[in-house]
Amino acid sequence: MDKRKIVKIVAKKNGMSQKDVTMVFDEIFSTMLEGLKEEGHVGVLGFGSFNVKKCAVRHRYVLSTQKVVLYPENKKVIFRVAKQFKFKADGVGEE
Amino acid sequence: MDKRKIVKIVAKKNGMSQKDVTMVFDEIFSTMLEGLKEEGHVGVLGFGSFNVKKCAVRHRYVLSTQKVVLYPENKKVIFRVAKQFKFKADGVGEE
Repeated sequence: MDKRKIVKIVAKKNGMSQKDVTMVFDEIFSTMLEGLKEEGHVGVLGFGSFNVKKCAVRHRYVLSTQKVVLYPENKKVIFRVAKQFKFKADGVGEE
Repeated sequence: MDKRKIVKIVAKKNGMSQKDVTMVFDEIFSTMLEGLKEEGHVGVLGFGSFNVKKCAVRHRYVLSTQKVVLYPENKKVIFRVAKQFKFKADGVGEE
């Protein structure tokens, strides 16, 4: 499912134009990115939470080249899906 | 940053009521959850992609209880932030 499909569904459900929904959609996700930049955490109740995590410098020895490769310090975004949205083994559902 | 703050910022930028933005916000994320349930993949251009990943059955030996614990097959949501939103070591920024 991509952005276009999401916008189409939301516009139909809310009786809004796809143009308006796209505008709000883009604004929501750019605001969330700003939130990650500034606060390092964004929480969406009922969906999940995003956290920026620091990854320390890492050294890896590459067998093929017999050299040590240095991975600089880095940050990544960790996403945790909302608790009530547990994935059951037999399928995906809500508890 | 939580949902209330995001809605406030988006409503202000778009000149919409917080009520309307909240409605669209909720609809977007419930549609995304539906997309994850049905298709196992949701991609938001410029923000990131969500994929449902299957985790096989795992057995763990717990030292303290000296028992083997079985973790049933499970699924989890993996999030990958958009490429252009690389996190630089010194801060969080766009390349």
